[in-house]
Amino acid sequence: MSTTQLHELAGRVQEASRELARTSCETRDAVLTTAAENLVARADQILEANFEDLHRAEAERIGETAVDRLRLTEARVTSMADGLRATAALSDPVGEVLDGWVRPNGLMVRRVRVPLGVVGVIYENRPNVTSDAAGLCLKSGNAVFLRGSSSAISSNRAIVDVLRDALEKSGLTKDAVALVEDTSHETAVEFMKLRGVIDCLIPRGGPALIASLLENATVPYVLDGDGNCHVYIDASADFEMAERIVRNAKTQRPGVCNAAESLLVHAEIAPRILPRLRDALAGVELVGDPAVVAILPGVELATDEEFATEFLGMKMSVAVVDSIQGAIEHIAKYGSGHSEAIVTSDLNAATQFSKEVDAAAVVVNASTRFVDGGELGLGAEVGISTQKLHARGPMGLRELTCVKWIVQGDGQVRE
Amino acid sequence: MSTTQLHELAGRVQEASRELARTSCETRDAVLTTAAENLVARADQILEANFEDLHRAEAERIGETAVDRLRLTEARVTSMADGLRATAALSDPVGEVLDGWVRPNGLMVRRVRVPLGVVGVIYENRPNVTSDAAGLCLKSGNAVFLRGSSSAISSNRAIVDVLRDALEKSGLTKDAVALVEDTSHETAVEFMKLRGVIDCLIPRGGPALIASLLENATVPYVLDGDGNCHVYIDASADFEMAERIVRNAKTQRPGVCNAAESLLVHAEIAPRILPRLRDALAGVELVGDPAVVAILPGVELATDEEFATEFLGMKMSVAVVDSIQGAIEHIAKYGSGHSEAIVTSDLNAATQFSKEVDAAAVVVNASTRFVDGGELGLGAEVGISTQKLHARGPMGLRELTCVKWIVQGDGQVRE
Repeated sequence: MSTTQLHELAGRVQEASRELARTSCETRDAVLTTAAENLVARADQILEANFEDLHRAEAERIGETAVDRLRLTEARVTSMADGLRATAALSDPVGEVLDGWVRPNGLMVRRVRVPLGVVGVIYENRPNVTSDAAGLCLKSGNAVFLRGSSSAISSNRAIVDVLRDALEKSGLTKDAVALVEDTSHETAVEFMKLRGVIDCLIPRGGPALIASLLENATVPYVLDGDGNCHVYIDASADFEMAERIVRNAKTQRPGVCNAAESLLVHAEIAPRILPRLRDALAGVELVGDPAVVAILPGVELATDEEFATEFLGMKMSVAVVDSIQGAIEHIAKYGSGHSEAIVTSDLNAATQFSKEVDAAAVVVNASTRFVDGGELGLGAEVGISTQKLHARGPMGLRELTCVKWIVQGDGQVRE
Repeated sequence: MSTTQLHELAGRVQEASRELARTSCETRDAVLTTAAENLVARADQILEANFEDLHRAEAERIGETAVDRLRLTEARVTSMADGLRATAALSDPVGEVLDGWVRPNGLMVRRVRVPLGVVGVIYENRPNVTSDAAGLCLKSGNAVFLRGSSSAISSNRAIVDVLRDALEKSGLTKDAVALVEDTSHETAVEFMKLRGVIDCLIPRGGPALIASLLENATVPYVLDGDGNCHVYIDASADFEMAERIVRNAKTQRPGVCNAAESLLVHAEIAPRILPRLRDALAGVELVGDPAVVAILPGVELATDEEFATEFLGMKMSVAVVDSIQGAIEHIAKYGSGHSEAIVTSDLNAATQFSKEVDAAAVVVNASTRFVDGGELGLGAEVGISTQKLHARGPMGLRELTCVKWIVQGDGQVRE
């Protein structure tokens, strides 16, 4: 795909975004519902396309996890369709009046929520992202410009076809959903430079993608970052609650960003609670600081690097801290600004931790695993932002919108 | 300044930002008030430093406008101090609970406004930006990391000294305000790459700075963009109001971003209103499309480039459009997404224009010059964003904050 072709496609997507911004939520919901029906009706076609991708992936020996991420089944297609229907059922973020006031000179000011315009998504493997991301973008009135990986190209094409047909059936321009079919690195870089077309780029992928984005992107983007999440057990904690929360935060689904990676324990209770926590964490490899090792013989000493690591598996770093201040400092040093929990029955400790820990989410007396758009009540999730600009923490439909100022007068001019 | 030295300074600024985030608004206001007093008390010192800059600038023949922007007078120092006092008087954005709810499982969720952390500012010439930006950042609980231009280095140093002394007097770490004294391009580029330290970078400068930022920055930033602002005179417009608004939008202060650059007139009224608008715009050079030239002999034909130009002076492009749809399309093609006005007495036209024009601000029956933080009631303005992420339109104290999720439970774990 030449740069000219990419720009030409980008222009059509932008044009479609303008049309979409004028539609009612009813129309956009109808697109999602039609697409959901057609995903199920055309499941055979999608699975056939997916089979091509799987076949190629297996020939290229890309590894079992990657193949699993790539694989679609009838159940997975149904779940994509259910996702679209659930998104259609959410309330419309567009048009919400955020606030408004009247100026002394009579100017009436209001700030209204509007679609971003064109949302770009660069993603790897998982073809369900095609349908999930498109659903959320369309619902919030945005055109979506997709650039998936080469390994999933046939599946992505098949899913995008269904979405585009649904747009057409509702009388809308197909280009409100567009896929960049050239999966070369050069085109990805060009894509990241579509300033003036892509209003927000959302990367869904590994460290190499993020590095390339930081290096190349000139369009605005929101990063979905790592989660080196801590659970701090305060001196006043209920031991049974601490065990339950630590076990859940670490082991309920260890491979995700809101799983806990590090345990901090107040020195006062460390000798009593650490053996209980070790039992609660049966099956988890623990590494600890010298104080932990002294209490739990057999636990290996943790390196500085381990304290900074998001293990994404059954391993956890453990440290003893002298005070809540010590816990806050440890988190400031090693945390990634995702989700940080405290278990405590002391109001002052809960307040201080909530105030002073700098993270997207602070959790008091609950599992870090709740830091998720669905669990916190957003209905749908685009990702979890660990940056501070625009969106922080779980991103829902609102984070796919921006504001427009509307200023109404009756002839006012400035003196 | 070596990269190590910059990183060392950056670390201190980040450390100071954490301290600042724990302060009360009362303490931060006291810093601003003390700094205001000391700016006035130490005006001689500041003017002396400014004299060094001016002397060097004149020797280097940097041009009269640049020298004027650089020049401080006793009145300008007083106005900097007044600015700090006005900022101190604004209400505190930090701690505001944006929203909150209770989940079915009893988890109590709230989203709270918190400081960004470290705000970086790269700016050119004007030394008053040093004090204005620092005031707004400190008020909103952020440390500010400044990188001014070499031409203003002595003035900036003197002003930063006053601000740092005020921090110290309130018992705070001086490094909550820090100036990068090395003004080389290399260090500016390093500055733009301080990811993990600078939470938001605000550039205040010309196209070269923006280009360098797009090329080099890895930290999140908010751009203060161009304003190719239009005024569209609808068929139903009150002629007297149209004249008044067009004159004000174009000529009240032509060199600023919210001044109008382009005039669009509905074909139905063009023959009658264009001669009147030409009179209202006495002193403004007009260039127009063929329909305009046919009505106003002597007006030169406008090029496509002129329709896309932010003149920032006494020149204006003019076009006749067949319909409000034509006006909206013209704005989509040439506008920069800043401020777009309509003069109309037709409710449908006002509604359609407000809904379909994609800009930070849509103004109905008033001058584009009102699109300004002060005029719209924000109290203070950091800039006017023409991007859509994080902030759009006038940016006040709120735009120097982000949210933190606080989730409180009583032992909940995820199933």
